Amino acid sequence: MSGAGPGMASSDGKKTFRIGMLGFGTVGAGVAQIVLHSQPSLKDKTGIDIRLHKIAVRDRKKRRAVSIDPGLFTADGEEVVNDPEVDIVVEVIGGIEPARGLLLKALANGKAVVTANKALLACHGRELFEAALAHETSIGFEASVCGGIPVIGALRDGLVANRIETIHGILNGTTNYILTRMVEDKAPYAQCLYEAQSKGYAEADPSTDVKGLDAAHKLTLLSNLAFHSVFDISEVHAEGIDRIALEDVRYAADLGYAVKLLAIAKRRNPGADPEDFPGGLELRVHPTLIPFSHPLANVRDVFNAALIRGDATGEVMLYGRGAGMMPTGSAIVADIMDAARGSARQTFTKLQFFQNPREDLPVIPPEKMRSRYYVRFNVDDRPGVMGKVATVLGSHGVSIASVIQKEPHETGHVPIVMLSHVTIEERFQAARAEIEELPFVRKPSAFYRVED
Amino acid sequence: MSGAGPGMASSDGKKTFRIGMLGFGTVGAGVAQIVLHSQPSLKDKTGIDIRLHKIAVRDRKKRRAVSIDPGLFTADGEEVVNDPEVDIVVEVIGGIEPARGLLLKALANGKAVVTANKALLACHGRELFEAALAHETSIGFEASVCGGIPVIGALRDGLVANRIETIHGILNGTTNYILTRMVEDKAPYAQCLYEAQSKGYAEADPSTDVKGLDAAHKLTLLSNLAFHSVFDISEVHAEGIDRIALEDVRYAADLGYAVKLLAIAKRRNPGADPEDFPGGLELRVHPTLIPFSHPLANVRDVFNAALIRGDATGEVMLYGRGAGMMPTGSAIVADIMDAARGSARQTFTKLQFFQNPREDLPVIPPEKMRSRYYVRFNVDDRPGVMGKVATVLGSHGVSIASVIQKEPHETGHVPIVMLSHVTIEERFQAARAEIEELPFVRKPSAFYRVED
Repeated sequence: MSGAGPGMASSDGKKTFRIGMLGFGTVGAGVAQIVLHSQPSLKDKTGIDIRLHKIAVRDRKKRRAVSIDPGLFTADGEEVVNDPEVDIVVEVIGGIEPARGLLLKALANGKAVVTANKALLACHGRELFEAALAHETSIGFEASVCGGIPVIGALRDGLVANRIETIHGILNGTTNYILTRMVEDKAPYAQCLYEAQSKGYAEADPSTDVKGLDAAHKLTLLSNLAFHSVFDISEVHAEGIDRIALEDVRYAADLGYAVKLLAIAKRRNPGADPEDFPGGLELRVHPTLIPFSHPLANVRDVFNAALIRGDATGEVMLYGRGAGMMPTGSAIVADIMDAARGSARQTFTKLQFFQNPREDLPVIPPEKMRSRYYVRFNVDDRPGVMGKVATVLGSHGVSIASVIQKEPHETGHVPIVMLSHVTIEERFQAARAEIEELPFVRKPSAFYRVED
Repeated sequence: MSGAGPGMASSDGKKTFRIGMLGFGTVGAGVAQIVLHSQPSLKDKTGIDIRLHKIAVRDRKKRRAVSIDPGLFTADGEEVVNDPEVDIVVEVIGGIEPARGLLLKALANGKAVVTANKALLACHGRELFEAALAHETSIGFEASVCGGIPVIGALRDGLVANRIETIHGILNGTTNYILTRMVEDKAPYAQCLYEAQSKGYAEADPSTDVKGLDAAHKLTLLSNLAFHSVFDISEVHAEGIDRIALEDVRYAADLGYAVKLLAIAKRRNPGADPEDFPGGLELRVHPTLIPFSHPLANVRDVFNAALIRGDATGEVMLYGRGAGMMPTGSAIVADIMDAARGSARQTFTKLQFFQNPREDLPVIPPEKMRSRYYVRFNVDDRPGVMGKVATVLGSHGVSIASVIQKEPHETGHVPIVMLSHVTIEERFQAARAEIEELPFVRKPSAFYRVED
């Protein structure tokens, strides 16, 4: 009853699927290379034949990395999404427009869509997924998170029987490369960024990566699947890595912690504390201290990983290269096959739009998030200082797990480094602000959240 | 065109699926618990309703961990596989018969099959997959490898656009626990096995695990999907961990290597050497030295992991708990949903049975496998010994990468530990046998293969 018919083609017996592409940059060329090269083996494996049919590019005359029949190129994206022979539209233009408008037309025409455009789906996901649902077609976006690592498939299918409790992800290769260099070479941020740029791992304007926005886009998409709703980028609290001081990377290492840019989604039950938020979902991206023994601490350089905790499976981790022409191309082709086999499902049921499941799982505002904290204050070297700092923390209900007083700086002040127990963000920040105003404290202090 | 219709149910509009279970042990109870507990959320997520319909057990009166309507139990497996109302048959009896016979009947009745029975599929896979193909239905076996880690789904769907080059897996939790204890506690095998048994990680008769057979079963199934053919357990070369000496675990650690039971599938191109095998597939399970920096070296205790190299994605690793009631139950329910959504595909196309793709990828016989080796000889402490050992190795074309001569044992002999460059198994074994016969060498020597 569940087979796809003889030869394992799609459910309606169709066996040849025509691909229309929007854009043909690095990832597009990767897709074309895989389709052209692997067509026979894909047909052997699945019974389905996929063909490049039409490709919209800005410049039809430009030389391409892959040799393509020039007759396939058009300068007009509308031609691709309106072509009745095109079954599946692959979008690799990036950015919001014209990608959004073209994909809405493709969906309205009943075409399956495959995209690597995390920014588009994180900002306009609800509109696009609703269109897919209304027109009974699908949007594949495996390539938009962690490149060739099948993490979307894992959340949608492999872990479907789980209630997802937490996601901890290293979802941005650029920042992971920079942090790996900072931790391992004890080199400052600016130098490691420069190295990443020289190697082509970081853009000339690296802000989308280093400010945590790219990781936040991806966390939005993972959370959609993990928590069965459609989240918006505005619901994710994002902080970047561009103000990380090497000094804190060193102190963290002394304490047994690595610094990683983690994207975190966490289901939280109501706390006992009446000032606490009554349960919901934390969505946040920020530099985070994790113990060296943590599975994510060993994810180095440009590699990505997602550590997902389900109520049945416990922790599952997926790891690999999160970007690049061929890994991302591989994920797009997997989504094409998924659509062709008729198994790409509308990612969300009507229930998820119309029965408001978010009632049970509101996004917790940043000031109500719960975490352990690392904090460093630079203080004058005189008696009684530690006691006063500890007193202020205590008065805000922040309790201290450990304290290290470091050797005095050349400038004469002494760094005090503390790890707190779990507390509420606003309490911690109120205590930190009050301590910064003490006469013997030199601003600014530094703080990081800690996950164990 | 690729959607599954409104409400995202199966392709033929069916929305309620009845499960017949064969067996109701630990894993079966896990499946029942997830189905009963998660039915509403599974319906929300997918539009599909799954129901327990009939359960065949040996003893209908036995008390069960999960509270089940007693009317569902039957003592007769035939009743389950012949019930026209049953859509999907879940087999959790284990062993070969009666599981094999019942599943063949279920497939002949057009029912989708979901099983965790790796031994059955590794020994009778061809017969069962052919039956699924003939009756246009499917066999889901995600639960048979690595419990709740969706590695089967990754190979079948997520990595479909890749030519898989290698699989390196820690596929057996029992042996990984024992080896973790040996490496970390420097405790001998027998003591660590006893500890594993005390904790319930190892059976009273641990031979299927410690001899490498369980890992070999799982490697067979992963290779089916990775290399698109149906392999038999007899094609896997398996060695266990039961003869690992603590001495070698220590020397390996001194050299920077951990000892793991790895399941390895490796595509090999023809070598330049005329005595070499003309390309094919290596399938092997054996204790293996891997550098401490290798991603699999950090997979500790009962955890499993599979490191898969594809031509497009590069290395992808999946990691998690490889066994247990709830992780395995979670994988079975994922396969049930997959079958219900109509997306469980016949795993193999007719091509794979009738066009003999194995011509291109013969399994390489054990004596022709290629590897680096760790070898330890115990020799008398006198001059010229090292030179003679090295001369014999050289005469067989085995070249040495590094040598360590250890302190003399209490018994007076001296261990010489060598790491070779890559060579062919039969050459290494011929050299080792010849060296063991030298008058100053005390038998037996010890050897391990090395992966970098």
